[in-house]
Amino acid sequence: MKVNGRHYRTIWPKQANPKIIEIIDQRYLPHKFVVEELASLDDFAAAIKDMHVRGAGLIGATAGYAMYCAILHAPQKNFKEYLDETVCKILDTRPTAKNLSWAVQRQLTAINSISDPELRIQKAFETANLIADEDVDFCRRIGEHGLHIIRDLSTLKDGEPVNILTHCNAGWLAFVDHGSATAPIYAAHRENIPIHVWVDETRPWNQGSKLTAWELYQENINHTLIADNTGGHLMQHGMVDLVIVGSDRTTRTGDVANKIGTYLKALAAKDNNIPFYVALPSSTIDWELRDGLREIPIESRSGDEVKFISGLGDNNELTRILCGLSETPAANYAFDVTPARLVSGIITERGIAAANEESLLQLFPEYV
Amino acid sequence: MKVNGRHYRTIWPKQANPKIIEIIDQRYLPHKFVVEELASLDDFAAAIKDMHVRGAGLIGATAGYAMYCAILHAPQKNFKEYLDETVCKILDTRPTAKNLSWAVQRQLTAINSISDPELRIQKAFETANLIADEDVDFCRRIGEHGLHIIRDLSTLKDGEPVNILTHCNAGWLAFVDHGSATAPIYAAHRENIPIHVWVDETRPWNQGSKLTAWELYQENINHTLIADNTGGHLMQHGMVDLVIVGSDRTTRTGDVANKIGTYLKALAAKDNNIPFYVALPSSTIDWELRDGLREIPIESRSGDEVKFISGLGDNNELTRILCGLSETPAANYAFDVTPARLVSGIITERGIAAANEESLLQLFPEYV
Repeated sequence: MKVNGRHYRTIWPKQANPKIIEIIDQRYLPHKFVVEELASLDDFAAAIKDMHVRGAGLIGATAGYAMYCAILHAPQKNFKEYLDETVCKILDTRPTAKNLSWAVQRQLTAINSISDPELRIQKAFETANLIADEDVDFCRRIGEHGLHIIRDLSTLKDGEPVNILTHCNAGWLAFVDHGSATAPIYAAHRENIPIHVWVDETRPWNQGSKLTAWELYQENINHTLIADNTGGHLMQHGMVDLVIVGSDRTTRTGDVANKIGTYLKALAAKDNNIPFYVALPSSTIDWELRDGLREIPIESRSGDEVKFISGLGDNNELTRILCGLSETPAANYAFDVTPARLVSGIITERGIAAANEESLLQLFPEYV
Repeated sequence: MKVNGRHYRTIWPKQANPKIIEIIDQRYLPHKFVVEELASLDDFAAAIKDMHVRGAGLIGATAGYAMYCAILHAPQKNFKEYLDETVCKILDTRPTAKNLSWAVQRQLTAINSISDPELRIQKAFETANLIADEDVDFCRRIGEHGLHIIRDLSTLKDGEPVNILTHCNAGWLAFVDHGSATAPIYAAHRENIPIHVWVDETRPWNQGSKLTAWELYQENINHTLIADNTGGHLMQHGMVDLVIVGSDRTTRTGDVANKIGTYLKALAAKDNNIPFYVALPSSTIDWELRDGLREIPIESRSGDEVKFISGLGDNNELTRILCGLSETPAANYAFDVTPARLVSGIITERGIAAANEESLLQLFPEYV
């Protein structure tokens, strides 16, 4: 997508030296556009854990490049032990995102039979690039499939804007390009279908106000920022036609882990007969799991992320404030699980499935 | 309740000069404890509109004193026109809160037959004090009735803490004392029933992180601050035993307008079979209304309240930050309506009613 008119991905090998990987450091958006260089496994681990990068697909792509970086700098001896440690270190960064382990596993499979260090490095680099390119391609296809839903709603609305609510950022910043939840939105906008997006600010990390609103502004798409509390009221009053969100891990039965608060929006959509879609590349599906509520691990982050909020101060400098008492204890669960019964459909790179095992397996028969 | 060990109400006539009314200016809490003097109708209107005071009961009590202040400074001529203008000015401040018009109407009735200016002033002062005293008394009784619910849950939990989730601030700061939703919590704490309160931060104005957490800290009650997005996840995992919220206007049929986001918590409570109670003095009930969704006016406030957040900066000064782009459009609906079907019960000063007309009228037969 474009930033001030120039095309960017969220992660890429540095042109002058592909041993270094560059990312957009999302902690400073929308106030500053910062590109960060990642050159060591520690750099990668910190970038994922401390959310310089975040979002299902981008976590996966970053993990792919992290594996490449580790293999690039592997010691000559004890490669297996080193690789085990590397994998543990990467997997430890974020527990909920399926794409993380998916990308790591993919790298392990790719290099498994290669013993020559140089060839192994080359293969890991190719695989990391492939993961990133596939992510772009899958998101583009998600856009094409989801476009039909928006087009149909637009026909029903007779040219009035289709009001789409989204939670968190499942935009291109959460992937390598296009995004998952936003891909159909961008596709509809390119087709000149009138749309308007309600952007949940998405506390506590404010991915909505900081990232999604910035993306939509860059792409010139009509949108309105709202507190996360607002969606139910809008739905009760006919001001939402469609909800699209992303996912960080989805079970083979269609239970969806996504940013904390997604479940509340799904309940409100159900209560008001509003379609609730989840857009995700299949790399997000955990084919091992059947019961999202019991089996998907939910990351618990520091309560300080609830109490401290950063933004632009009056002096135009990035400033952090404490909102409340320093003595107040805070809890910070990063995701929740929306049961399949509340999901109208899952938009994947291969088409739209109902949120159940049978329908998902029709699209992905290799997991039967 | 107590602030640093000293007893306070939220509004009171100044001891040295009862023509001046003092309030706690809640915009600076919890970082600064500021007492503000209100001496003119403009002072009162600004205090209500700009949320120096807020919350159902306190808005009512402030409106009562505002009427007194206006009558105190009434011109000798054209009293009726002056009074009409005064009433309009007060009612214009906040559209959703029923207590506002209720208190104004009560003052109008009280002074209606009095033509002597001095007697009128005296009567208006007495009535304002009566409204405030009644609010305290009603909240205390709400605490006694609601205590039974918590006590019963505590018995079931065999001494484990009862986990209570509350949204916004329906604490003593929202009333003259005790609060509505918090009254049973304070009553339970006084009886040494083990409790723990999940405090929704309550975006965009952060009444939870700034006011409710501060109240509970002052009263030494176990609590944890959470983002508004979190409650559904907690309920799915058995970490909430009871939800208690307040109300700004309730229909005779039991539909409840309360802080935006309340409806989402009610849906989650229903989905997880968790009791969802609304605590309110009867001054909050609008006996004219039957359909909350269609008939209760919902206040729309400035979008800047979503985009700008204030708190304590690193320099320990109150600081305001912009969270997102200045160009981002934002909407700010202040309340939503929870349909009666989602409400387990309404805790009033006369006892607990089911959320329907018949049950409410059994407690308040004068409105049949």
